[in-house]
Amino acid sequence: MRPPRLALVPGEPAGVGPELCVRLAQRPRDYSLTAFGDRDTLQSAADALGLPLVMTPPDSADDRAGTLALVEVPNATPVRFGQPDPLNARAVIDALLAAGAGCLDGGFDGVVTGPVHKAAINAGGIAYSGTTELLANQAGCGVVMMLANPTMRVALATTHLPLRQVADAITTQSLRHVLLTLHDALQRDFGIDTPTIAVLGLNPHAGEDGVLGDEEIRVLQPVIESLRGEGLRLLGPLPADTAFLPARLAQVDAVLAMYHDQGLPVLKFSGFESAVNLTLGLPYPRVAVDHGTALDLAGSGAADPSSLFAAADTCARMAATRLAHRHDPAGTAHGACQ
Amino acid sequence: MRPPRLALVPGEPAGVGPELCVRLAQRPRDYSLTAFGDRDTLQSAADALGLPLVMTPPDSADDRAGTLALVEVPNATPVRFGQPDPLNARAVIDALLAAGAGCLDGGFDGVVTGPVHKAAINAGGIAYSGTTELLANQAGCGVVMMLANPTMRVALATTHLPLRQVADAITTQSLRHVLLTLHDALQRDFGIDTPTIAVLGLNPHAGEDGVLGDEEIRVLQPVIESLRGEGLRLLGPLPADTAFLPARLAQVDAVLAMYHDQGLPVLKFSGFESAVNLTLGLPYPRVAVDHGTALDLAGSGAADPSSLFAAADTCARMAATRLAHRHDPAGTAHGACQ
Repeated sequence: MRPPRLALVPGEPAGVGPELCVRLAQRPRDYSLTAFGDRDTLQSAADALGLPLVMTPPDSADDRAGTLALVEVPNATPVRFGQPDPLNARAVIDALLAAGAGCLDGGFDGVVTGPVHKAAINAGGIAYSGTTELLANQAGCGVVMMLANPTMRVALATTHLPLRQVADAITTQSLRHVLLTLHDALQRDFGIDTPTIAVLGLNPHAGEDGVLGDEEIRVLQPVIESLRGEGLRLLGPLPADTAFLPARLAQVDAVLAMYHDQGLPVLKFSGFESAVNLTLGLPYPRVAVDHGTALDLAGSGAADPSSLFAAADTCARMAATRLAHRHDPAGTAHGACQ
Repeated sequence: MRPPRLALVPGEPAGVGPELCVRLAQRPRDYSLTAFGDRDTLQSAADALGLPLVMTPPDSADDRAGTLALVEVPNATPVRFGQPDPLNARAVIDALLAAGAGCLDGGFDGVVTGPVHKAAINAGGIAYSGTTELLANQAGCGVVMMLANPTMRVALATTHLPLRQVADAITTQSLRHVLLTLHDALQRDFGIDTPTIAVLGLNPHAGEDGVLGDEEIRVLQPVIESLRGEGLRLLGPLPADTAFLPARLAQVDAVLAMYHDQGLPVLKFSGFESAVNLTLGLPYPRVAVDHGTALDLAGSGAADPSSLFAAADTCARMAATRLAHRHDPAGTAHGACQ
């Protein structure tokens, strides 16, 4: 099997993304790595950190440490670290879309992304709610957000919604789609033949038999039972407060939280530096860092690269798992959603 | 200063509460301990575990390990471990109320409670939603629930509500009361002169400047700013997912979560065995175990007593802190709420 070919997008050029990519390029790797971004910005980041960086053409196939193949997506204006410029918003988005397109047309097997500065993109006149949504729209896929670190995987049934909209957003149809997407990703990207998923309740104590809310009875339990009938191994709905105890986590491959703040505080507490943000349901694996642009650190060399390292390693493993199970082993990454 | 006098209520007699009390009685202590419960049940638990237990009159002042002063609250029917009997519901409630009354009239300085079986109480014909509410009603106080372990303290602005009712339940008035109660308890019970409290946002990313919900702007920020003007040291509203990172926790004495599943999964993950459940705002400290009746373990001796040990130690420290700061140092525990 050939090594996976990963597309790497630094994200906001004035943030820590470029220097984290430079650090990533220094590591020995068993996958092929191609950055999508601005040459001068990457060179500036390497200079600021005093690290060597040889940028090669996209087809050079040189994956020695210290090299980085580059698909140039030039910035509109020179970058000053720490000061995002809305003039460069277009280049950030174009780089993400080029990397996504590269996967959709089979040139690449996965996308790794650094942190994007949402306000700078919007200030640049581009409607942007997140890279997850951008790549989902490009591919025409319904996706699921999952965060992972070595301790746990936590997927979300809803993501960035006001709390008072959460209960109505979880429908039989949406929950079924999320669970199937998560199940398929655990099989396809993580190589788990029969994954076990812990499904949290929406309400405290998972509704306590209807005393604390009836969504478990009306929506969650029927979906869970129906999918069990189709062969999925699902626990729950479980009370969220005890679902993350070590003995419980040891029984499951992933936890599905119903909403953002039910699942992510414990995930981030259990290992923030090594956490990554995955988009499940795309035709290719996409893994992002689980931190922001850290504008105050940009150019200083102080930013911790653990999350980007973990993102690249995770994406490479996922891509390799997909390649290994593909019927056409020399084949390309095109395909349906998930 | 005299040692604190603690009232100990085993809770559901068919659960692990009685045997945990027997184990607690074996430990050396620097406080006075009096159980409120059924003599035969405690003796049966001691026998089942093969541990010595000398039950003494309430005024014996014998606090050597292996002894336990007892205020008898007899069960209506003999206990079979693992099988709650609704006939004993009245005795469970009477023991809790007697312990609470003992604190209100100054005979005791704090209450430590084991796990209660809510369904058995209700099956016994007694409307009961929780010991927190029972003691709050008895004392006529508005209270705040806080869970704590050696890693963090997490208080809740709302407790056992369906998720869709949470947003409307957090009002300017309720949040102000909760924050003042929490602040005063950190001062009075924990001896922290100027406590720092991290207030979580209601919505993901604390609303992201109103994009993900406006409760932070309409309710949380005004209350926080008003209380800052009165001298409280408050952080927030903070995004919940990063509020529990170790660097952040190190800055604060407690976290106020807006609802149950925003705060408790991370608290329990960070240390379940040693976690305790505190009721703040009563005229006396009350600390409970943070686990259930574990009916399957009752009588086997396998139940982990860490949480009850932590509850007694925590209650004794809180009571001692109150005694040390009381103007009448020989005085009694009567007083206003909090």
